[in-house]
Amino acid sequence: MTLPPEFDLIDRHFRPLADPGALNLADDAALLRPPPGRELVLAADAMVENVHFLSDDPPETVGRKLLRTNLSDLAAMGAAPLGYLLTVALPRGYDAAWLAGFAAGLAMDQREFGLAILGGDTVSTTGPVSLSLTILGHVAPGTALRRDGAAAGQDLWVSGSIGDGALGLQARRGLVTDPGDYLAGRYQLPQPRLALGQALVGLATAAMDVSDGLAQDLGHLCRASRCGGVLKADAVPLSAAAASWLRSHPDGLPELLTGGDDYELLFAAPAGAAAEIARRAEACGTAVARIGHLVPGEPAVTLRDGAGAEIPLGRSGWSHF
Amino acid sequence: MTLPPEFDLIDRHFRPLADPGALNLADDAALLRPPPGRELVLAADAMVENVHFLSDDPPETVGRKLLRTNLSDLAAMGAAPLGYLLTVALPRGYDAAWLAGFAAGLAMDQREFGLAILGGDTVSTTGPVSLSLTILGHVAPGTALRRDGAAAGQDLWVSGSIGDGALGLQARRGLVTDPGDYLAGRYQLPQPRLALGQALVGLATAAMDVSDGLAQDLGHLCRASRCGGVLKADAVPLSAAAASWLRSHPDGLPELLTGGDDYELLFAAPAGAAAEIARRAEACGTAVARIGHLVPGEPAVTLRDGAGAEIPLGRSGWSHF
Repeated sequence: MTLPPEFDLIDRHFRPLADPGALNLADDAALLRPPPGRELVLAADAMVENVHFLSDDPPETVGRKLLRTNLSDLAAMGAAPLGYLLTVALPRGYDAAWLAGFAAGLAMDQREFGLAILGGDTVSTTGPVSLSLTILGHVAPGTALRRDGAAAGQDLWVSGSIGDGALGLQARRGLVTDPGDYLAGRYQLPQPRLALGQALVGLATAAMDVSDGLAQDLGHLCRASRCGGVLKADAVPLSAAAASWLRSHPDGLPELLTGGDDYELLFAAPAGAAAEIARRAEACGTAVARIGHLVPGEPAVTLRDGAGAEIPLGRSGWSHF
Repeated sequence: MTLPPEFDLIDRHFRPLADPGALNLADDAALLRPPPGRELVLAADAMVENVHFLSDDPPETVGRKLLRTNLSDLAAMGAAPLGYLLTVALPRGYDAAWLAGFAAGLAMDQREFGLAILGGDTVSTTGPVSLSLTILGHVAPGTALRRDGAAAGQDLWVSGSIGDGALGLQARRGLVTDPGDYLAGRYQLPQPRLALGQALVGLATAAMDVSDGLAQDLGHLCRASRCGGVLKADAVPLSAAAASWLRSHPDGLPELLTGGDDYELLFAAPAGAAAEIARRAEACGTAVARIGHLVPGEPAVTLRDGAGAEIPLGRSGWSHF
């Protein structure tokens, strides 16, 4: 009795990625002995073709983006990665070269971030490629960074630069010039801030990753922490490419703050922690910028220019529906 | 700043299902303290509209089937459920009543099986509804039932009845008569054999759940355990409905053994364990039947009639590709 094609597919593309606990992806489930005395951190993200990635994106970056958006959730909690499970829904006439590239991207990032696949499922679909990844990480019990620990008066910080992912999507669609494909690369290959997240444990009072636009995500942090947020327009860190785009789109800042796909860390900390934050971020090799502060009151997010005048944000951020 | 519609969707349909460790589904990830001294068991299954369920299936059963197929994987490992993460890809113009029904089904089965949602993601798709569920369970370290521990000479057993799921799909398509909707119910609402799986720990030498057809799944067990399998045609347990169908389709047994969607437990045990297996199964309220045995040699699966003559199986089982 020969095996049906999906087992050949799993054998060829996913078995080489398996963690020892995955039992060679040949059993009903994987086994994992959690690190003793640690708390587990669990997140799941889905990605759909032509919603989260483009059909002509290099397949290597699709696998890596899927893994990295989940790693970014671990980073936001201050967690270290343990492993992941993956489900893949593919058209029946799927392109084997695409799948090989997708798996090669996962293999690359498994090495870079030190985790492996624990299990999953491969099924057919009549629609676009549909991917789902569940990630497991761990923290010392009770130390996970959450969204609800910040308070009015504290500073707001963000890592890296904001707006590149949104511009990168436009660049991939030919709507924004992108010399050297820097912006496209930021859209296709986010950089999970794992080292920074772990360095912020015990220092940041709240943290989250910016995936749906800085303004909207800050709104979530404000709601969870029961305060308002004020962003200083000229403190938001921009890449050279985004700064250049902004010079030709003088009213474009709100677009950069509501566009999504940044996968930077947004966090809050008391003003007195600023020097230590700068020191630890430097040790991680990750740039951080103080972009505003939290105020008492409703969980509204306000953007202010250098003179203190409010800049309207328009839409809040990305929504699927 | 108002929240975009997907947060309203999560708030309305999924937040009531959340485990305390899910942090109210309002953070980047969930926190879970694993039961001390236990090994984790992890599985993920995907379901796609019109591949794994039909557009006009009651939405309650879709959510329950998704959860139950994953619970069946835990059952096959002898594990107890802990919690789950869920990703849902929905068309932009999704039907709110469908989603409410889907969530109500999950709520029902959360109560029945004692677990809750830990996290997930809700995204849009241009294709069919696409679901993915990752389940976590636990076992005493080193005791999980696996596929690779059986040996030639041992008996093969199966729980419940075989072939109802495949006939149920045909009944849903109007191809098979189904008085009382018994077969459709077996297709839409599998019964994960959790109590039996846990009762078999230390007794069964190998186990798995039957999801892609008994013949094909037995082939997996045989390959993992490096032996062949012989099924006795007249020992395969059939429901009254399947037996009735078989009377009007005298050559139909192979169809019942290769059709998929059974979600029964297939397991192996030494002949000397038979009485204890019967005793424990009885205590669980789950019927079990001895359906054959394992033989030395290649991992081939042979079906034999009462006189010992081979019945050709035709195709081995369900394949997506």
